[in-house]
Amino acid sequence: MIVPNHVLEMLKRVRALYYQDGRETRMLPDDAAHSPFRGAQSASAASITGLWEALRNQGKARGRSQSILADPETLANAETYSGNIENMIGTVKVPVGVVGPLRVRGLHADGDFHLPLATTEAALVASYGRGALAATRSGGISTAVLYEGVLRSPAFVFDSLLNAGRFVDWVVTQVDDLRAAAEATTAHGRLVSLEPIIDNNVVFLLCRFTTGEAAGQNMVTIATDALCRKAVDDCPAKPLRWYVEGNFSGDKKATSLGTLTGRGRKVSASVTLPEQVVQKVLRTDIDAMLDYGRVAGLGALLSGQFGAQAHYANALAAFYIATGQDAACVAESAVGFTRIERREDGLFCSVTLPNILVGTVGGGTALPSQRAARSLLGLEGPGSAAALAEVTAALCLCGEISIVAAMSAGHFTSAHRKLARTR
Amino acid sequence: MIVPNHVLEMLKRVRALYYQDGRETRMLPDDAAHSPFRGAQSASAASITGLWEALRNQGKARGRSQSILADPETLANAETYSGNIENMIGTVKVPVGVVGPLRVRGLHADGDFHLPLATTEAALVASYGRGALAATRSGGISTAVLYEGVLRSPAFVFDSLLNAGRFVDWVVTQVDDLRAAAEATTAHGRLVSLEPIIDNNVVFLLCRFTTGEAAGQNMVTIATDALCRKAVDDCPAKPLRWYVEGNFSGDKKATSLGTLTGRGRKVSASVTLPEQVVQKVLRTDIDAMLDYGRVAGLGALLSGQFGAQAHYANALAAFYIATGQDAACVAESAVGFTRIERREDGLFCSVTLPNILVGTVGGGTALPSQRAARSLLGLEGPGSAAALAEVTAALCLCGEISIVAAMSAGHFTSAHRKLARTR
Amino acid sequence: MIVPNHVLEMLKRVRALYYQDGRETRMLPDDAAHSPFRGAQSASAASITGLWEALRNQGKARGRSQSILADPETLANAETYSGNIENMIGTVKVPVGVVGPLRVRGLHADGDFHLPLATTEAALVASYGRGALAATRSGGISTAVLYEGVLRSPAFVFDSLLNAGRFVDWVVTQVDDLRAAAEATTAHGRLVSLEPIIDNNVVFLLCRFTTGEAAGQNMVTIATDALCRKAVDDCPAKPLRWYVEGNFSGDKKATSLGTLTGRGRKVSASVTLPEQVVQKVLRTDIDAMLDYGRVAGLGALLSGQFGAQAHYANALAAFYIATGQDAACVAESAVGFTRIERREDGLFCSVTLPNILVGTVGGGTALPSQRAARSLLGLEGPGSAAALAEVTAALCLCGEISIVAAMSAGHFTSAHRKLARTR
Amino acid sequence: MIVPNHVLEMLKRVRALYYQDGRETRMLPDDAAHSPFRGAQSASAASITGLWEALRNQGKARGRSQSILADPETLANAETYSGNIENMIGTVKVPVGVVGPLRVRGLHADGDFHLPLATTEAALVASYGRGALAATRSGGISTAVLYEGVLRSPAFVFDSLLNAGRFVDWVVTQVDDLRAAAEATTAHGRLVSLEPIIDNNVVFLLCRFTTGEAAGQNMVTIATDALCRKAVDDCPAKPLRWYVEGNFSGDKKATSLGTLTGRGRKVSASVTLPEQVVQKVLRTDIDAMLDYGRVAGLGALLSGQFGAQAHYANALAAFYIATGQDAACVAESAVGFTRIERREDGLFCSVTLPNILVGTVGGGTALPSQRAARSLLGLEGPGSAAALAEVTAALCLCGEISIVAAMSAGHFTSAHRKLARTR
Repeated sequence: MIVPNHVLEMLKRVRALYYQDGRETRMLPDDAAHSPFRGAQSASAASITGLWEALRNQGKARGRSQSILADPETLANAETYSGNIENMIGTVKVPVGVVGPLRVRGLHADGDFHLPLATTEAALVASYGRGALAATRSGGISTAVLYEGVLRSPAFVFDSLLNAGRFVDWVVTQVDDLRAAAEATTAHGRLVSLEPIIDNNVVFLLCRFTTGEAAGQNMVTIATDALCRKAVDDCPAKPLRWYVEGNFSGDKKATSLGTLTGRGRKVSASVTLPEQVVQKVLRTDIDAMLDYGRVAGLGALLSGQFGAQAHYANALAAFYIATGQDAACVAESAVGFTRIERREDGLFCSVTLPNILVGTVGGGTALPSQRAARSLLGLEGPGSAAALAEVTAALCLCGEISIVAAMSAGHFTSAHRKLARTR
Repeated sequence: MIVPNHVLEMLKRVRALYYQDGRETRMLPDDAAHSPFRGAQSASAASITGLWEALRNQGKARGRSQSILADPETLANAETYSGNIENMIGTVKVPVGVVGPLRVRGLHADGDFHLPLATTEAALVASYGRGALAATRSGGISTAVLYEGVLRSPAFVFDSLLNAGRFVDWVVTQVDDLRAAAEATTAHGRLVSLEPIIDNNVVFLLCRFTTGEAAGQNMVTIATDALCRKAVDDCPAKPLRWYVEGNFSGDKKATSLGTLTGRGRKVSASVTLPEQVVQKVLRTDIDAMLDYGRVAGLGALLSGQFGAQAHYANALAAFYIATGQDAACVAESAVGFTRIERREDGLFCSVTLPNILVGTVGGGTALPSQRAARSLLGLEGPGSAAALAEVTAALCLCGEISIVAAMSAGHFTSAHRKLARTR
Repeated sequence: MIVPNHVLEMLKRVRALYYQDGRETRMLPDDAAHSPFRGAQSASAASITGLWEALRNQGKARGRSQSILADPETLANAETYSGNIENMIGTVKVPVGVVGPLRVRGLHADGDFHLPLATTEAALVASYGRGALAATRSGGISTAVLYEGVLRSPAFVFDSLLNAGRFVDWVVTQVDDLRAAAEATTAHGRLVSLEPIIDNNVVFLLCRFTTGEAAGQNMVTIATDALCRKAVDDCPAKPLRWYVEGNFSGDKKATSLGTLTGRGRKVSASVTLPEQVVQKVLRTDIDAMLDYGRVAGLGALLSGQFGAQAHYANALAAFYIATGQDAACVAESAVGFTRIERREDGLFCSVTLPNILVGTVGGGTALPSQRAARSLLGLEGPGSAAALAEVTAALCLCGEISIVAAMSAGHFTSAHRKLARTR
Repeated sequence: MIVPNHVLEMLKRVRALYYQDGRETRMLPDDAAHSPFRGAQSASAASITGLWEALRNQGKARGRSQSILADPETLANAETYSGNIENMIGTVKVPVGVVGPLRVRGLHADGDFHLPLATTEAALVASYGRGALAATRSGGISTAVLYEGVLRSPAFVFDSLLNAGRFVDWVVTQVDDLRAAAEATTAHGRLVSLEPIIDNNVVFLLCRFTTGEAAGQNMVTIATDALCRKAVDDCPAKPLRWYVEGNFSGDKKATSLGTLTGRGRKVSASVTLPEQVVQKVLRTDIDAMLDYGRVAGLGALLSGQFGAQAHYANALAAFYIATGQDAACVAESAVGFTRIERREDGLFCSVTLPNILVGTVGGGTALPSQRAARSLLGLEGPGSAAALAEVTAALCLCGEISIVAAMSAGHFTSAHRKLARTR
C-alpha cells in the first residue's frame, strides 16, 4: 500500500464522521442564536461571582469548579489582578518546586541561587536539580549577556519601489528626530538600532530597543507607534498604509531572525564538569556524554531545528510561569545552541540563548505569588533583568547537562517511569 | 562607524564589567563550599514546610513569600501534587479569564464553548474574546483533526554504513514483533508508523504513536524503550550504542519535521466572516484585513518563521496552563499556517496547527484547579482529546482574526495602552 | 548613528539616482515600441545564423561574439541540440578539469574513477583532487544510496475542509487505479508512495516516483498529470481548481521537505583517514581538523543552513555541468550533512546528501561533449544512475575533506591567492 | 504495514546487495595500489594532450571523447583557461539560447536587453522568453539594487567567554585600523560593516565588503585574511585558534543569514501586467494567476522553503553559466520572495533576491565564449555589476510570471511534453 499507514489509521477513525448523517450540516455554519455573555474588564470579587453565575446559567459551571478557581484568597485579592487579565473567574494553581543551590558566576548575576519552577510534569524539577548540583560542584556556571534589544518591526506600504526607496532615504536622514519621538513615550526604553528592510514597495523598519528592567513588549510597541506617526506625518513620500508591527519582529514566534540576531537578551552560559562530577553526580562518563552529544546534534540538524538543543522549553516554561514572565514567549525563547566538548580538565558544556525575554518589573512580575516566587532569587533594581536573564540561561544549561547524562547512561526512560508513574 | 550601534551600546554597558577588579576571578569557577539543600521527592504539608525552613536558613525566604506560595489550601492538598512535581514549596496562582461563547462546528468538537485562559498579559483575553464573538456571529468555526501521532525517535549507532543498512533491513522485516513489544507496555498507545532515517552509520527510527486521550509523551517513551530493547536484543547487527531519543522527534522544539509531518495532532480550523461582522464586531473592513494579511505574510516569510502566523503562542500558553497541559509544548505547538482570503460571502480565515499536544487525562489534567478550569469545556471520555485539540485550534483562529483586525484598523497599540497601562 | 553603516554607504551610492532628473520617469513603465524578435524553436545552422542577424540588426551582436559562440563545430552539430534548447545562438565553452583516481567502494559504484569537472573557478579542481587523493590513499570511499524517489506535489482546492477530507478518503481507497494511470504514461517511472497533506480546503498529494536511469523530472510531471486527471474525473468530491505542481515538491529549491525526506536520491559516503594520510597528503593533523570541524558546524548552525556542510555546491555545479545534468538542481542538491569524528584508526569523515538528481539518460546527457565527459566514468545501463549518485556524493566528500584540512592549516587563503591571481 | 512503502521498495532493490558475496569486503577500504595520475596546474595544448594520454593508459578515454572535449579550437586557446581551472582536458559545450527583448527600467540598468541562457533543459528558454514578452509589453520591469555586500565570517576560538568578550571589545575600538589592513589588499574592496557574533568562547566577525564590479569572493577572502592577521597580532586577548571563514557567511549555501541580510546584491524587480497582456501573451487571466499564486505560496510555506518562489534556479544557472559567473553560487542565489497581487491596473508581480552574486570582471567573465555571450548585454565599466544584478532579477521575474501563468492555465505539462519529447 503506497499510502502511509498512519494516514490509513487516521482515515479509519474519521471516515464515519465524514459521511455520518447530518455531519455535513453540522460542520457548516450554524446561525442558531448563542447565549450572550457579558464580560468584565476589571476584576473584583463581585465581577468574578457574576461571571460564574452567568456560566452556571449556561450550564458551564460544573461541580466544585467555582470554589476551586475562585477560592476565598483569590476573591479577596481580585483587584490585584485587574491590570493583568479580563473576564477573570479565578486562579489556576500551578505547583512550584525549587532547584538549588545553583552557583552562577556571571557578568551580572553572582551567587548561589534557588530557583522556583512551576510545572505539572513529573521529573522536571528533579532533572534540573541534578544538573544544578553537577554545575555547582564544578565551581558554578559562567554567564554573560551578549546582546540586548527588543524588536518591533513596523511596515509601510508604498505605491512603488521608487517611493519605498525615497522613504528609507528620508528616514535615515531624520533618524535622530524619529528616535526622539520614540523615546519621548518611555522613561526606560531607548532606541539603539534602526534597520530598514525593503521588499519592493514594502518597507519594514527593524527597531531595536533596550527596555531597562522590563521585558518591555508593550513599551516598545508604544514607542514604535510614536516613531511611525512622526515618520508618516513628516515624510514627503507618503505610504498608502502602515502598521505598527509587520509580523517581522519574531514576537512570540521562533524565527530565523531571532535565532540570528537575538530578541530580548542573548545570553551564553558555560561550565566545565570534571570527570569526577560526571561520574558521581551524573552517574555516567565524559565519553558517553560526548557520544550522545554527537547523536543529539545530528538529530537536531536532521529534524531542522532552529539551533540545536534538547529541552530549553522545559526550564523556560516553568521559570517564566513561576516568576510572572510572559509564558507565550517560550515560543521564541526556546531556541538556541547547546555545545559539549572535551577539554583538558573535563567536559565543557555551554548554552547560548538569543531570545530570553524576562523582566523584574512589568507583566505578571508584581502579582502576589509570582513576586513571592521571584523573591527567592533576590534580584531587584538596576541590572536585575540582565542578571535574571543570566540565571535563566544557567538553568537551561542544567537541564541540558542532566538530559545528556541521562540519555548517555540509559536512565531517561526509567527516571520518567519512576517519577511519573509509581507514586 | 562600521560596527552596529547596538553593539557599541552594549559594550558601553558591560565594558567596565569585563575589566573590573576581581571580575576575572569572579567569572571563574569558585570552589567555595555551597550550602547543602535536601530536596523532597513527594509533597506533603510537612515536606513543604521543611523546604521553606531550609530556604529560610539560607536567607532565601524573603518577606511573606512562604505564606503566599504555601497557602493553607495548598498545604491541605499537598499530596495531590506529588505525582507532578518534586521539591514542592507551594503553588503559583495564575489568573484565569474566560472567553466565550465560541461556537465550534468540528469533526469531533461540536457546541458553544467557554474557554479558560490563564495569563498575566493584559488585553489577551479581551482580544481572543473579540475574535470568538466574530466567529460565533458568523456561524461558528469548522474544525477537523487531520493527522495524529506523537513521535519518538530512538537512535542507533553502528560501526559502518553497511551494518546500519542491515539493521534497517532487519527492523523492517521484524516490524510486527517490534510493534507488539512496544504496544505491550501501554493500554492506549498504538504504533501507527515506523520510518527509518539513516545518516551513514547512525539510524533513527521515527516511531509515531496514537495515544488515546492522553498527550502521551511518557507513554511513547516507555513503549519506544521496549521496542528498542527488543530490536537490540534480537537483531544480529548490533549497534555500538543506542538511545531512546536521538533529539529528532521535535519534542518541545519548533522543527521542520514537526511543521511538515505533524506531532501530536494536526488540526485545521476555519470560518468565513461576513462583511457585516467584520464591520460591527471587528470595526474594520475586509479589504483592510486582506491588505494587512499580505504584509503579515510577507513579514513572516522575510523573518524566517516556520509557517506564517501572528501569535498562536498567546492562546496556547494561556490555554495549556489553564487546562493542565504541558506548557513547555508551546515551543512546538506555536507553529502553523494562518490564511485569510476573500470569498464571495466574506473573509475566509483559517489556521492549521500541525503540533497540538493536548490530553484530557495524564500530565497536569487531574490537578484540582486545572481540572476545574477544564470542566468548563465539558470534554471527557473517548474522543475528548481530539475535540480538545479542535477547540485549541479554533481558539488560535480567534486570536488571528482579532489581531489582524486590530492591526488593519490601527487599534493594536491603543488597545494595549488602554488595557495594560491605565487601570 | 543607529542606522547600520552599510545602509548608509548604499544610500550614498544610490541617493542621486533616486532624485536624478528623469529618474522617476525612467523607472516607470515605458510604452515605446520594442523591436520584435522572432525566435526559433528548433536549432540548425540556418536558424542560428538567422538569430545572429536579428541581433546584429538590433545592435546586440558585438565584436567577434557570433563566431565565438556559433563556431563551425557548433553550427555543424546544431540539430543535435534541438531537443534541449530554444532560440539557440551557439554554445558556451566551459573548461573541464579532471579529478582522480577516486576510489569508490559503494553499494552500486565500485572502482577507481576519474571525474570531469566543468568550472571557471581557480583552485576548485585542485582542491577536490587533493581530497580524492587522501580518500583513495585511505582505501577509498564507502557509499550507499539510502532512499530514492522524485517528488511531484499536485494541489487540489476545494470549497471546504469537509470536501477536502472526502477527496483524500476517496484517493486513498482508489490509489491502485490512480497509480496505474500514472504508470501508464511511462516505461520507467513507478509511483512508490503517495502521501496526502491537507491545509484546510487545499490538498497536496506528495507523489514519489522512482525513475530508472533518468533524473526524471519530466517523466514524473507527465505521470502525475495523468494521475490528477483520473482523480478529478472519477472522484465525486470535485475540486474547484487543481494544479499539477503546488510548489511543494522542492523542485530546484532548497526546502525543509527535501532536507528531511529526500528528493531524487539520498546518498551517504564516508571514509576514515589515517593520521599519516592527514599529515602527508593534507599537511595538517586530525586534531586540527576536528577543531575546525567544530567551528564550522557551529557556523552552519548559527547561520541557519539546511544541514551543515561547507561547499557541496562547488562539486555539484561542476560535475552537473560536465555530465549533462540539470545545473539548476544545484539549488536543491547542495544541502546535506558533513560529519567528522575521531575513530580509533583515524578521522572518520562522512557526507549525506538527500537530494542528488542525476541520470545517465535524458536531459543533457546525450549531448556530444557532455556524453564524452561522462564517458570517463564508464557508467551506463541498469544501475548506472544509482552508481552516478554515489560517485557524486563521494566527490562532495573529497571537497569537504580538502577544505576542512585547508582551513585547519591556514592554507585556504594562500591556495586561492596562488591559483587565482598569480598565473 | 507501518513502514512506508518507498522504504520497502528501496530495500527490495538493495537487499541483495547488502548480503551479496564479497559485498562486505567490497564496501570496506581496499588497499590495492591505484594508478598514479599526474595533474597539470596550467593549461596548454601539450598539457591537455598529456592528460588524455594518461587517461587512455588507464582505460578511461573512451571512443571520441578526447576529440570532442579537446577540440582544435579549445587546444588552440588552452592557455586562455589557465587562470580558471587545473588539470584541464578540454571544454564542455553548453548550448546557449537567447531571451529578449526584455525591457528593464532600473535604478542601474536601463534598456531593452537580449539575454543569453546556457541550458540543456528543453522549454526553459521558451518559458522565460514568454515572460519577457509579457513584461516588455507591459512597459518593462522596474528594478533596484537594495543592499550590497559580500560577507566573510572569520572565527576566533578563545579559552573563555570572558576573553571572547574582551577580544570583541578590542576589535570594536580598533576597527578603523583593522579596516585599513583589509582594504590595503585590494583596489576595489571596501569593508562597509563589521558585526561580531559570540557563542560563548567562539567569536565570528561578519565582515561585509563592497567589491566594485567583481563578484568578489576571492577579494574578500584575501582582505579578511589581512584583517584577521592584524587583529591576532595586535590584540592582547589571543585566540587559541582562528580561521578566515567560520562557515557562517553563507558562501555557496542557502542560509537564513543570506535570506535575511543579503549577500552579494539584494535586488527587487517588479512589473504590473495589464489584463490584456495576461490574456494575449500568457493565455490565462488575472484571477487564475492569483488563485495559483495563493496555492504556490502555501506550498512554499508548507514545504519549508527559504522565501517563496517557483524556479529562480532555472534562470540563475543558465544565466550564470552563459556569462561566466560562478555556477555554484546558484545554491545561495536561488532564494527569495515572489509576490503577485491585484492592482487597479492589472497584476502586480515582483521578485526580491537577496543573494545575487555577479560581476563583470573576475571569475570566468573574461573567457572567450562567456565574454561573447555577456557582450549581448552591453554592460561594462563602472556600475555594470549593479546593472547586471538588476537584469538578473528581472530575468527571474520573467520565469515566475511564465510558470504561474502556465500552471494557472494547465499548460505546464503540455509545454514540457511538447518541447522535450516530440522533437
